[in-house]
Amino acid sequence: MPVGTRATVKTLHPDEVAAAGAKIILANTYHLMLRPGADLISAAGGLHAFMGWAGALLTDSGGFQVFSLAHRARVSEEGVTFRSHIDGDLNLITPERAICLQRQFGSDIMMAFDHFVGLPAERSAVLDSTERTSRWLDRCVAAYNRSGGPTPGASLFGICQGGMEADLRRASARMLASADISGCAVGGLSVGEPKSTMAAMLEETTPYLPADKPRYLMGVGSPEDLWAGVARGIDLFDCVLPTRLARNGALFTPTGRINIGSARYRTIHEPIDPDCDCALCTRFTAAYLHHLFAAREVLALRLASVHNLRFIARQMEAIRTSIASGHFDTTRKEFEQMYRPVGMSA
Amino acid sequence: MPVGTRATVKTLHPDEVAAAGAKIILANTYHLMLRPGADLISAAGGLHAFMGWAGALLTDSGGFQVFSLAHRARVSEEGVTFRSHIDGDLNLITPERAICLQRQFGSDIMMAFDHFVGLPAERSAVLDSTERTSRWLDRCVAAYNRSGGPTPGASLFGICQGGMEADLRRASARMLASADISGCAVGGLSVGEPKSTMAAMLEETTPYLPADKPRYLMGVGSPEDLWAGVARGIDLFDCVLPTRLARNGALFTPTGRINIGSARYRTIHEPIDPDCDCALCTRFTAAYLHHLFAAREVLALRLASVHNLRFIARQMEAIRTSIASGHFDTTRKEFEQMYRPVGMSA
Repeated sequence: MPVGTRATVKTLHPDEVAAAGAKIILANTYHLMLRPGADLISAAGGLHAFMGWAGALLTDSGGFQVFSLAHRARVSEEGVTFRSHIDGDLNLITPERAICLQRQFGSDIMMAFDHFVGLPAERSAVLDSTERTSRWLDRCVAAYNRSGGPTPGASLFGICQGGMEADLRRASARMLASADISGCAVGGLSVGEPKSTMAAMLEETTPYLPADKPRYLMGVGSPEDLWAGVARGIDLFDCVLPTRLARNGALFTPTGRINIGSARYRTIHEPIDPDCDCALCTRFTAAYLHHLFAAREVLALRLASVHNLRFIARQMEAIRTSIASGHFDTTRKEFEQMYRPVGMSA
Repeated sequence: MPVGTRATVKTLHPDEVAAAGAKIILANTYHLMLRPGADLISAAGGLHAFMGWAGALLTDSGGFQVFSLAHRARVSEEGVTFRSHIDGDLNLITPERAICLQRQFGSDIMMAFDHFVGLPAERSAVLDSTERTSRWLDRCVAAYNRSGGPTPGASLFGICQGGMEADLRRASARMLASADISGCAVGGLSVGEPKSTMAAMLEETTPYLPADKPRYLMGVGSPEDLWAGVARGIDLFDCVLPTRLARNGALFTPTGRINIGSARYRTIHEPIDPDCDCALCTRFTAAYLHHLFAAREVLALRLASVHNLRFIARQMEAIRTSIASGHFDTTRKEFEQMYRPVGMSA
């Protein structure tokens, strides 16, 4: 899922996002409740209509941003009070309010409100947040069912937490498995821990999740993380990485990331990736994109963003094809032999 | 002509520019010679190929920017030396170099290199620049003919100057009328003088220009200036105004400019102009555009730019239709009764 934080995938028109192969966008409840506000989006006919997006929408519950972005977040059993990072206004999100906001948006997939603790965290704090996440999930499910439950175009996913504690991850996954929800998300990973820790925590989690519900790994990821996540049973991902990297001139290619600002691209009158079918590579050269970045032209951000989104969509297409044909493991090896992640030497 | 200063109409994809109704773009020789450089653009297969634009291209000669943007411009009969505003490098543009650069770009319409003096200017300085512009035009024509002359996809326009001096405007227009060129441009207007002065200078100029060659009023204009210019016999215009205003949230409507940042648009869940067929108005509401500007999202710049370009293109379409049907004057009156220019009270 490309991330459309504030009702727009940064720099892109919804038609470009769709053309890149995305069928679902993530938007952020925290941002949208503050600006333009859920009442306004509801009056616009919902988030799909407001942002002109015909595909599906998943909204997070605000949980992550409340703890990472808002000022003076205070957790009680009721919910979280915080001050807006925009104007300092006092706000409250409860499990019930998170569901209500997402109903107002008209989200296809609503996320339960969870309690996330950042790293490093004491075990006692992780335990506390994991247990609270469980109690809040019950309240989310109740609020969701009171407001109509699952309908065509509205479903609820729960989130498991557990920090980097294996037993808490297992307990949280089991809790999620027994909940009255349509899908299961893994939260609190990809928050700065080593990749091996994330992998280990996933190993403790996914075996306990029901096989017949989609699994969503939140805030992930890089091309290599998609392959690794699917290998551990994940179906769905979201990440700002492809579009954020793009705006900084970092583009995905089959052999790894490149930086288009590098002088070596100044005179390359060929596409970044001749085999890529994206709106950048089928029309413009590396030299032109280099020029646009050098001149700080806005078109640079769009073209790079479209390319990275298309690259990610193509990874998922390759993953699906390889699963269908029974060649996931060999296809993944081929990917890993070609693609050099950042920070890995050859 | 939308302005694509640095080989891109700011914030827009070439397909969006074409969809807005533009068939020709202006690009700036001064900017392109400095970055990415004419040799690089030539190696890319010319400016059309470099920027992915299938329509026509007009390039200015660098004359205006040399005098308005560059550092320490020094005029001699040979040409103008100046230091780049980017890196301070010393450069020289002569009439011959201006033609050579534009040949390298592959411009459909090349502009002669002229000597522009800003306001306020002594009559002696204006006389000097007007006469030099005439001598430089002869050198441009000679260089142009030596390099192949007019071909399909390459023509040369001359520029008349004359400041705000009526007799010099007339003399410069007569000079232009006798030159071996394909079109005639009026330079040195819309540089801060009152609209009545610009109108008066146009009145002194256009009667002396040949009726069978296109006339181009440089750096103009606003919607009202287009109607006024055509009324005085102008065919072609360029201006950064539509796209620059758009990036500041100022949008053209049939009744005048609006500022989408105004709080009154926050809850308008309708298009800016329901009768507009642009990519903004056919898909997004005023409330959404207001939100995008409030959130400083890049998509705002694009949607507003497309709208303003389409508005200008529709003015020109209305002008052409009204001329063809013999109703230009009444259609212009209808426009002026509806459209309230900025700075004019009701």
